[in-house]
Amino acid sequence: MGGDFAPRNVVEGALACARDSRCDFAIVLTGREDALRAHLPARVPENIRLHHTDDIVDMHDSIAVALKARKNSSMHVSLQMQKEGTAHASISAGNTGAYMALSTLILGRLPGIERPTIGTFIPSQSGPVLLIDAGANVDSKPSHLLQFGVMGSIYTELMLDRERPRVGLLNVGEEEGKGNDATIAAWQLLKQAPVNFIGNVEGRDILKGTLDVAVCDGFTGNIILKFAESFPGLLKSKFLQFASRSAVHKLWVGLIAGTFKRMIRDWDYQTYGGVPLLGVQGVSIIGHGSSTPKAFTNMMFRAKEMVDRRVNDTIRETFSALNTNT
Amino acid sequence: MGGDFAPRNVVEGALACARDSRCDFAIVLTGREDALRAHLPARVPENIRLHHTDDIVDMHDSIAVALKARKNSSMHVSLQMQKEGTAHASISAGNTGAYMALSTLILGRLPGIERPTIGTFIPSQSGPVLLIDAGANVDSKPSHLLQFGVMGSIYTELMLDRERPRVGLLNVGEEEGKGNDATIAAWQLLKQAPVNFIGNVEGRDILKGTLDVAVCDGFTGNIILKFAESFPGLLKSKFLQFASRSAVHKLWVGLIAGTFKRMIRDWDYQTYGGVPLLGVQGVSIIGHGSSTPKAFTNMMFRAKEMVDRRVNDTIRETFSALNTNT
Repeated sequence: MGGDFAPRNVVEGALACARDSRCDFAIVLTGREDALRAHLPARVPENIRLHHTDDIVDMHDSIAVALKARKNSSMHVSLQMQKEGTAHASISAGNTGAYMALSTLILGRLPGIERPTIGTFIPSQSGPVLLIDAGANVDSKPSHLLQFGVMGSIYTELMLDRERPRVGLLNVGEEEGKGNDATIAAWQLLKQAPVNFIGNVEGRDILKGTLDVAVCDGFTGNIILKFAESFPGLLKSKFLQFASRSAVHKLWVGLIAGTFKRMIRDWDYQTYGGVPLLGVQGVSIIGHGSSTPKAFTNMMFRAKEMVDRRVNDTIRETFSALNTNT
Repeated sequence: MGGDFAPRNVVEGALACARDSRCDFAIVLTGREDALRAHLPARVPENIRLHHTDDIVDMHDSIAVALKARKNSSMHVSLQMQKEGTAHASISAGNTGAYMALSTLILGRLPGIERPTIGTFIPSQSGPVLLIDAGANVDSKPSHLLQFGVMGSIYTELMLDRERPRVGLLNVGEEEGKGNDATIAAWQLLKQAPVNFIGNVEGRDILKGTLDVAVCDGFTGNIILKFAESFPGLLKSKFLQFASRSAVHKLWVGLIAGTFKRMIRDWDYQTYGGVPLLGVQGVSIIGHGSSTPKAFTNMMFRAKEMVDRRVNDTIRETFSALNTNT
């Protein structure tokens, strides 16, 4: 029931997923049954089930309200199903703050993880780079940054089939000893961590793609992510400005706009389809409020892959080994 | 003597400036006289003077070394001339850390300013937006953020002729109470400051240009600035990738590349020509290591403008009024 175009986009995305030949799983739609049915055909595909809930977490609900007063909300029930073992993953494009808090509180944290984190892929010159934390936490201690790096490395390795992902600490200079108190201490921790740590990296290294995982606090990560997302808008405005100068300019833009769009297609965040909340005992995928049906379909396949590729088991095993060693 | 192409680019930039009809000031080149003369004509223009210094601050010199052991360096002498009143502004593209520290220590801070700051313009959909602090400080207290906002507002108003610049606090959400401890406290301070405070802004607002001054700590600012500077490189790689697909693709790119370059011309950081260190008792302009002669010319005109438009006097008067009121 969450997102700007709910429940239409969610239901349409689920239908497309259910009808895809690669879909080897069942989709449970939690929400108001009548609202969901309005977007479904009379004969619902076999691999789509409806689970009626009569409440909804509102975009303006506080975390306390979402947790205590909305126990029969679509969001709450979906996570509860995971907790009880009747579902393997949850997806929501609703109130992000509430969804992250509910995921953490209902599913619980994985052993060794202090703060669950959001990892998001940013397109670079040589494929996607994982930015982690992209906004789940506003203040991050050195131990949090270490955990972001280890989880980000595991996620990138398993989901993108990249061997020994290069993990960099986002900083204001490349040399050891650069940065604020948190990054200086985190550098030491990451150096000894079971990841391919390449040291400090700078803002320019993300788009250059000279690394696979960029570790940062969630404050910086959130600002970079939103800054990056606004780049296509800037380009579009440049095209429009240029086109407005004369009929000839307009013709030019008409000719090149399509080509250009194809060139920057990987800047379309819909293809990535949501971001995972890493560090919880389950799979919790956070969708953008404006997610299209296609984005929802991608999120469903992404969630299944996270289960199949044993992301959480690997995180658990890695942190268990870390704690035994220290 | 500083920068990747020193002293050639500095000297060529000075020559172009001196020969420009708008140049109503004198340029003093500090450095090794023989090295400077190698790039000057036999007859040096009247408004260029040479001031021989036999030492240089190296890119790898620590701040302590730059300050104590390099007293006869081109950087040190240039700032010393300002301190003594024989120069009105200094420009350097050398060791940035050393130059900022020397500027602060030799020139001194303006009354009421705890931390000098770098303000840099980022091109947006509707003209340049000042990002402040762009990297002078790694940890910023709420009072520092307040001072960045006030200085940034004055600088933007006087240098870009913008009335009542909109000052936003860069944050992870728009509502009051969002953010980390520093931004939550800074919000309260900025609300009462003598600026047109529009509240919290997000990463996407910078390129949208819905504000004039984006206030942030220097850690976040430095990472955003370097991230932004790497956009043109990403676009270039997209063009090259596209061109490599076939002869037809290559032809297309050949046809549109020039047009496209003109469209994003304001992403050329050379046109802005360096960034000021605000909050010191003088004018200290920091150039990029790779500054072209054109960038140096622009820095010289920019420095003159900062003197003419009374940026420092206005900062002094504003903080003096602030301190009287509290």
